[in-house]
Amino acid sequence: MKIEIVENVMQYNKEEAELNRMLFLKNKVLTLNILSAPGAGKTSLIIETIKRLKEDFNIGVIEGDISSTYDAEKLKKITGHVVQINTGGTCHLNASMVARALEKLNVAKIDILFIENVGNLICPVGFDLGENYKIVLSSVSEGDDKPVKYPKAFVRADLIVLNKIDMFDYSDFRYDFFENRIRKINQECPIIKISCKSGKGIDNWLNWIELEVKKIVSD
Amino acid sequence: MKIEIVENVMQYNKEEAELNRMLFLKNKVLTLNILSAPGAGKTSLIIETIKRLKEDFNIGVIEGDISSTYDAEKLKKITGHVVQINTGGTCHLNASMVARALEKLNVAKIDILFIENVGNLICPVGFDLGENYKIVLSSVSEGDDKPVKYPKAFVRADLIVLNKIDMFDYSDFRYDFFENRIRKINQECPIIKISCKSGKGIDNWLNWIELEVKKIVSD
Repeated sequence: MKIEIVENVMQYNKEEAELNRMLFLKNKVLTLNILSAPGAGKTSLIIETIKRLKEDFNIGVIEGDISSTYDAEKLKKITGHVVQINTGGTCHLNASMVARALEKLNVAKIDILFIENVGNLICPVGFDLGENYKIVLSSVSEGDDKPVKYPKAFVRADLIVLNKIDMFDYSDFRYDFFENRIRKINQECPIIKISCKSGKGIDNWLNWIELEVKKIVSD
Repeated sequence: MKIEIVENVMQYNKEEAELNRMLFLKNKVLTLNILSAPGAGKTSLIIETIKRLKEDFNIGVIEGDISSTYDAEKLKKITGHVVQINTGGTCHLNASMVARALEKLNVAKIDILFIENVGNLICPVGFDLGENYKIVLSSVSEGDDKPVKYPKAFVRADLIVLNKIDMFDYSDFRYDFFENRIRKINQECPIIKISCKSGKGIDNWLNWIELEVKKIVSD
């Protein structure tokens, strides 16, 4: 009985995610679902990206939080296309929440849509939102063992971004260990190293995005 | 129907937690449920505490992880009283998991029991494990906005420990902001600032523990 209910929830989410995906496809929107632990720098990554790409692209953000509009207020200063989802306690976004947020965005005008998920390396992983890619953001200050401790996030990632590389000198983070443990569970996934603070590596991230936008526009 | 099932789960957890609590009380064990985001330093805090208190107290650890025995292996080097719980995907510990782990520990011999919860600032908060205190561990590198973004953890905390204060100089963490936002939702909760790396502030944490052990032993 219990299992049946869970399956229904996941099935319903899958159907809703497909509707979102069709909307993104129709409007040629590159949609990136950003997953991370609290404090890894999801909002900073989005802000630094918008600052550098806003002349070339219209960038939207769906901001997921349990409560507050703290991050959305920061984002509103640099883009007009921001919608806040307050989950009211729920530990992840689901496709219906995103569908409701999309009603408030002018999707036809958007080239790139960031969905900033709730800060949680576990629960959001299983919920398809209709995105093109799941991006897992990890950070040097969290330690190099995250792929060991939270494997499902790293297995499902289409791209892994390692933030706060300016902290390498102040931490005992072993990059080789981090990468080796990812390779045991996800052979192909690209890893981009950045620092939102110093700007180091951000160009590689921007190149990745621009290439993906081109693919979508030329499809 | 859905709500009824959730209520049953929570009611069952409450009953199991009471059984755990009675066992701790009977054996005069101080039990601390440690909650944090991934990478805040739960395992480091427990290791540094055992190193400093192991001459005076028998210290046990229930180590909660989705999978792997990575942290438990570190802990086994410094205490014989370690049990690993692998939740197999579940995003928090519950009282039944702890009850099963307790069967593997010699509770009569233990003075202080750490329960290291799954790294997650959201889901573990609502699950009573029978502990004396919920301790929320936050870290400077996660940023000063965690009480705003994950309020329930900070509301329910009996003690807040801020780790990685050696990073103050390399971050834009505003301690006053962090404390003020906690005070809006939790007026009384003590906050202890530490660095597991440099050892700064650890004495305040040890003093807090020793005082709590005395209370329990003298009860």
